[in-house]
Amino acid sequence: MGLPGYAQAMSDATDQRDRAAVVLSALRRTRQVRQFTDEPVAADDLRAILNVARWTGSSTNWQPWHFHVIRDPGQRARLAELAPNARHVAGAALAIAIEMPGEKEQWETYDEGRVSERILVAARALGLGAGIGWVTSKYRDGVAQLLGLEAPAYVRTIISIGHVAPEALQPKSARGEARKPLAELVRDQ
Amino acid sequence: MGLPGYAQAMSDATDQRDRAAVVLSALRRTRQVRQFTDEPVAADDLRAILNVARWTGSSTNWQPWHFHVIRDPGQRARLAELAPNARHVAGAALAIAIEMPGEKEQWETYDEGRVSERILVAARALGLGAGIGWVTSKYRDGVAQLLGLEAPAYVRTIISIGHVAPEALQPKSARGEARKPLAELVRDQ
Repeated sequence: MGLPGYAQAMSDATDQRDRAAVVLSALRRTRQVRQFTDEPVAADDLRAILNVARWTGSSTNWQPWHFHVIRDPGQRARLAELAPNARHVAGAALAIAIEMPGEKEQWETYDEGRVSERILVAARALGLGAGIGWVTSKYRDGVAQLLGLEAPAYVRTIISIGHVAPEALQPKSARGEARKPLAELVRDQ
Repeated sequence: MGLPGYAQAMSDATDQRDRAAVVLSALRRTRQVRQFTDEPVAADDLRAILNVARWTGSSTNWQPWHFHVIRDPGQRARLAELAPNARHVAGAALAIAIEMPGEKEQWETYDEGRVSERILVAARALGLGAGIGWVTSKYRDGVAQLLGLEAPAYVRTIISIGHVAPEALQPKSARGEARKPLAELVRDQ
């Protein structure tokens, strides 16, 4: 509206590039965060994250997930005990445990990776931190019992979410060196 | 710079919210696209997508992937024949085939889902479309041979990328009904 023809088209193109730059930067900069402050997560932010999760694509759009939001510190402390790889949930503002149906191993694992990645990126976009903790197979019965799941449903991914603690921002490797270079990863035919 | 103290903090907060809204919207709106125009993908856009893929997190940061960029129409036509679920690669501007090492099934499948989701979101952010085609197990040998992979490495995910054809924009379901509602998906404790 307002700008006619060519000027409008140029303005739209600039907007599109600006938006793209914001999204690409958010994607590139999303890192696992496992240390959090005591500040709670705003209800609107949690809802935004869950809505991003909800819109994740899945094989044949089957949407195999349920999202358990765990705020209670006692419940999170128990989870941390039951699943050593997810012990960071004890210090988070909340956790999202992703329940999967336990029906189609390969498909579920892939789709669970997709939705987990979205949750990490959404949290980062909101200025929060998020970190994945896996419940490895030998701990799954305990977690399933705590969360009241019905077999064969299980939880493998628990994502801690909260405001990022300063110590989580310490770089773990030299700038730009945390990932292999494109030249090593890409085979361009 | 320029705005002191409180005014700067308010301005920063507004910027942060604006950027968050852009990222969350891009995430929510990313859909599979499998119909493309003939327009090629700009080299800068492809590079941006590959960089997003490169920065994806993975179990213990092992970065198990290689990305095969396939532009040649003949090669894409052969891929489409070899992998019926990825037949849309024939009509795309290019395809990215994700090579995985074939060493740790569960971890690879999950991390492959994570990186695939990032590629879809990055393409969408750039105004492009992208769609996942799976090479199911019985077709993997043929694809591995075509791409010159060494066993046990394999390709399961092939992502078609290109400019979105108008027919890909037809909604497949009524507005807002393509996904289950949050009330059904979330268990809030």
